[in-house]
Amino acid sequence: MFPAFLDFTALRSAYSRGATPLDLAEEIIARRKASSDPAIFITPVADDDLSASARALMERAPQPNSLPLWGIPFAVKDNIDVAGLPTTAACPAFAYQPEEDATVVARLKAAGALVIGKTNLDQFATGLNGTRSPYGAPRSVFDADYVSGGSSSGSAVAVAAGLASFALGTDTAGSGRVPAAFNNLVGIKPTPGLVPNVGVVPACRSVDVVTVFAGTVCDGIAVRKVMEGYDGRDPFSRPAKPVSLPLEGLRIGVLEPQEREFFGNSGYEALYDQAIARAEALGAIITPFDYAPFREAAELLYNGPWVAERLAAVKDFLSGHAGDFDPTVRSIIEGARAYSAVDAFEGLYRLEALRQKTQAAWQGMDVMLLPTAPTTYRVDEMLADPIVKNSHFGRYTNFANLFGLAAIAVPAGFTSDTALPGGVTLIGPGFSDDALAVFADALHRKAESGMGKDKAAALPEDAKVNPPDDGLVPIMVVGAHLTGMPLNHELTGPGGRLVKTCRTAKDYRLFVLPNTTPPKPGLIREPGFAGEGLLVEVWKVTPEAFGRFVQNIPAPLGIGKVTLDDGSQVSGFLCEAHAIEGAQEITHLGGWRAYIQSRAA
Amino acid sequence: MFPAFLDFTALRSAYSRGATPLDLAEEIIARRKASSDPAIFITPVADDDLSASARALMERAPQPNSLPLWGIPFAVKDNIDVAGLPTTAACPAFAYQPEEDATVVARLKAAGALVIGKTNLDQFATGLNGTRSPYGAPRSVFDADYVSGGSSSGSAVAVAAGLASFALGTDTAGSGRVPAAFNNLVGIKPTPGLVPNVGVVPACRSVDVVTVFAGTVCDGIAVRKVMEGYDGRDPFSRPAKPVSLPLEGLRIGVLEPQEREFFGNSGYEALYDQAIARAEALGAIITPFDYAPFREAAELLYNGPWVAERLAAVKDFLSGHAGDFDPTVRSIIEGARAYSAVDAFEGLYRLEALRQKTQAAWQGMDVMLLPTAPTTYRVDEMLADPIVKNSHFGRYTNFANLFGLAAIAVPAGFTSDTALPGGVTLIGPGFSDDALAVFADALHRKAESGMGKDKAAALPEDAKVNPPDDGLVPIMVVGAHLTGMPLNHELTGPGGRLVKTCRTAKDYRLFVLPNTTPPKPGLIREPGFAGEGLLVEVWKVTPEAFGRFVQNIPAPLGIGKVTLDDGSQVSGFLCEAHAIEGAQEITHLGGWRAYIQSRAA
Repeated sequence: MFPAFLDFTALRSAYSRGATPLDLAEEIIARRKASSDPAIFITPVADDDLSASARALMERAPQPNSLPLWGIPFAVKDNIDVAGLPTTAACPAFAYQPEEDATVVARLKAAGALVIGKTNLDQFATGLNGTRSPYGAPRSVFDADYVSGGSSSGSAVAVAAGLASFALGTDTAGSGRVPAAFNNLVGIKPTPGLVPNVGVVPACRSVDVVTVFAGTVCDGIAVRKVMEGYDGRDPFSRPAKPVSLPLEGLRIGVLEPQEREFFGNSGYEALYDQAIARAEALGAIITPFDYAPFREAAELLYNGPWVAERLAAVKDFLSGHAGDFDPTVRSIIEGARAYSAVDAFEGLYRLEALRQKTQAAWQGMDVMLLPTAPTTYRVDEMLADPIVKNSHFGRYTNFANLFGLAAIAVPAGFTSDTALPGGVTLIGPGFSDDALAVFADALHRKAESGMGKDKAAALPEDAKVNPPDDGLVPIMVVGAHLTGMPLNHELTGPGGRLVKTCRTAKDYRLFVLPNTTPPKPGLIREPGFAGEGLLVEVWKVTPEAFGRFVQNIPAPLGIGKVTLDDGSQVSGFLCEAHAIEGAQEITHLGGWRAYIQSRAA
Repeated sequence: MFPAFLDFTALRSAYSRGATPLDLAEEIIARRKASSDPAIFITPVADDDLSASARALMERAPQPNSLPLWGIPFAVKDNIDVAGLPTTAACPAFAYQPEEDATVVARLKAAGALVIGKTNLDQFATGLNGTRSPYGAPRSVFDADYVSGGSSSGSAVAVAAGLASFALGTDTAGSGRVPAAFNNLVGIKPTPGLVPNVGVVPACRSVDVVTVFAGTVCDGIAVRKVMEGYDGRDPFSRPAKPVSLPLEGLRIGVLEPQEREFFGNSGYEALYDQAIARAEALGAIITPFDYAPFREAAELLYNGPWVAERLAAVKDFLSGHAGDFDPTVRSIIEGARAYSAVDAFEGLYRLEALRQKTQAAWQGMDVMLLPTAPTTYRVDEMLADPIVKNSHFGRYTNFANLFGLAAIAVPAGFTSDTALPGGVTLIGPGFSDDALAVFADALHRKAESGMGKDKAAALPEDAKVNPPDDGLVPIMVVGAHLTGMPLNHELTGPGGRLVKTCRTAKDYRLFVLPNTTPPKPGLIREPGFAGEGLLVEVWKVTPEAFGRFVQNIPAPLGIGKVTLDDGSQVSGFLCEAHAIEGAQEITHLGGWRAYIQSRAA
């Protein structure tokens, strides 16, 4: 009744064919019991409670798929509050019983999604590997010797193993992206501030972001859209102000040779190269960029004063409970005591200086494509060298939130030697979240790597991310604005693009307007006239550029609606009828360009 | 030859009548010698050097007033680098010889302005009163018993005393505004990041702003425009993104009764009330707002971790030179050692939480009008209680830079008892600098308080700040878009405004288009036709709204240029000629509204 990987399209299809959320609850209960990894959940929702929530949804909204996330099961990282379940942050002594859902959880529940449990994490979200928890280390779904990635370890594994359709993570250094790479998942990391953090245990409050693990970009973005929106109770919440990206000729920045560091993992390096090749095949313009200022910012996050944010988050608890911490996590957090307020402000200065340096890189690219993680490690390797090996994982992720950027991690296939999955991440300017999704989805599809543990699953066609409406206005030009003509710059100047060259319908006549500089034609419709149609061009410009353009057109010309030879109507140049009295008709030449050429000849 | 107060209009007029910058240099040399306040300058430009710079300008640009600031003399606060003069920050042991001009000074020199000297300040710009300097305490130009205000003390007094046309200050807590109030000057405090700080000794680097003292808002804004513009060497430099304000019905937030604190200075309270009355008389909508979150942020600047920025700025110098500091300044700066990085981040969290709280206030107002300083003190009073009395001065200024706001301080007249000047400050959203200037200038003019020490000077009419071009596009409507007609919402929806009702030229004819819903007219020009003109309306909309509007017009209507009865041409509705064949003519009714009424009758 339900597929191995619970993507939204499959689930909705099952619901529309008669399956119910109660059936799904039973399926998940069965899958949880059969799961081979005991470290995924800290607090699973009890079987009876899960069934009860499915029944409650069916009562509240009986019509299948009648809410945006109707009956979609999800797991919640255990540093995000779900009313009725303890929040532990993977520290049993820290546990508390939240009275309210986190804002994001409340919004997801309202949209019909069903919580299946609270998942394991690196304690206090301090780590990128998944081994720093007293509740055990979740493992990569592809090889139990390997780490799951962290800190959102249990969330990623729950989705990859088919226990949930999506899961919430949090991402400060890269915790919403690295586990996606290690479990063949998409990781949506919104622009900081887009999704409110009310009800989330802070790691570094100024740069924490709630993230989504899912099988497809489409599913992940759908969840983000439900979660996002200003909440004034979060000091860092910001109203969305969407930023667009080019739909064609996207300039993608990639690592220069000297910045490539895979810590000896040639399999991951190959996956990165293959992803670049796929991006190029999709029409992107590949351009190496200067990663140095991004790398330097990445290094600031752990080797700088920001670690004091972690101390600020737990300092009251730490006094009296030092022994209750994971030793590695405690050593990191206590290291923050060495930093003064002067260090903190100097760190902020350094970050702002690096931000200025990154402006040069952004001049040459629209987004960047980086390895999500440069390598992976076995659990025993990680435990033997927990600080250094963990830091390797964050090499290409740590800077994103410090700079307020949007990121989407997508699978990039499997290494030929170890058959482990690797990933790449597209990173764009703040609030380019939706624009980024279009290319991220295309790149993901081209990787043909399945979803989560199901390597053979095909990405559903229905879950394809379509380009957002570009909002541009078509305008038909007939004379001096044609390509190569004297006024064409009035279209190209404000970024106009040529859509097509075509003919008008047959009932239009063209005249040469006397005394115009540069020479201009006048187009008139005369119902019943049967000509050949006139050769014209259709361009697209922004509404604002169109408004300025129309404002500058002199009499007797103006903009009306012109019918083209395919029957469509488009805004375009027309002429007041009085102005063609006595004017030379050139309809028989077929267009203005032919007239100009005839004059030159 | 030169007036007592050297405003730009008077100076340019003198230049165009034959005076030269060399004449001006001699005048300033004479005025400096005659000055009664020995504490204004730390390093005046030597007489010969001043004359030489005037001659150099006359060689470089012989034509009078041929550069934006041709021959305009200015003073520079001595924490801003001028090549060839020492920078002391009012600490002799700290002095260094800069090799380059600060970016702002270089830009002003390039625009033709002449440096006359480096001015006194509260040491390291730490203070708002002007007494914290080993170079003495400059005095209010109106009463030598009273403080000048600080930290930009010498700069303000130099302008008020007629020694310079403008002067540069810096403003962290309010140093570019408080001295303006105490010396009957305008203080322009740009949005943080708009004017680069390269070559400025930092106070709190994250919130320092270079400011301008001048006699009129117009003069001050002219200087700011020369200084502004992105400089990537300043980590906090930002590209300008101008924000507009309503030109009519500006909503001005004022203090609620419980937030009014003048420390017993009823004269200053009266000046504030008079300024509010003037604002109302100018057409503003006065609305009390919740000042509490702004006040709490103001308190953070000195009583919080930001003081660590001051320590960061001088910590290398402080070790080994503690004895070279002003004792009060040193005690403030050394107090920063108590703050940890945790304190710093918790301060940032607190600030962001307060910023969220201020959003509610901004919903109800466009700008706020506050006392610049709530009171003033004699020098002996200040020296007797330097920390507390100084903090009083910052009550209404300290928050502005923390929140990234723009501010313009303007004179508000003189107290009836002490005859000392007071001021008010208009504070607007970040990058509303230009928009703010329009109302600030109007408010200043209405105060009729002269300029600087010259209480009787009239503000020059030529220096009136005109509203910026609103960028709106006029559009003439003739039918269903008229006021009260079915499609009028297409204009009002996107914020369109009615400009006027008028008639077209006489050679237009109006027809009823058959089969249109709602009923629509068709307007046609027929040269030679002699009617009465048709009643139409002209509206204004943004170019973007105009573009969308035109895009939605169906055939056979379109937008051409229509001639009005005053001979002007405006974008407006026209109809394709073929559509009026057989249509009912209603030209004789004089317009569409009359036709609709005739049908209803």
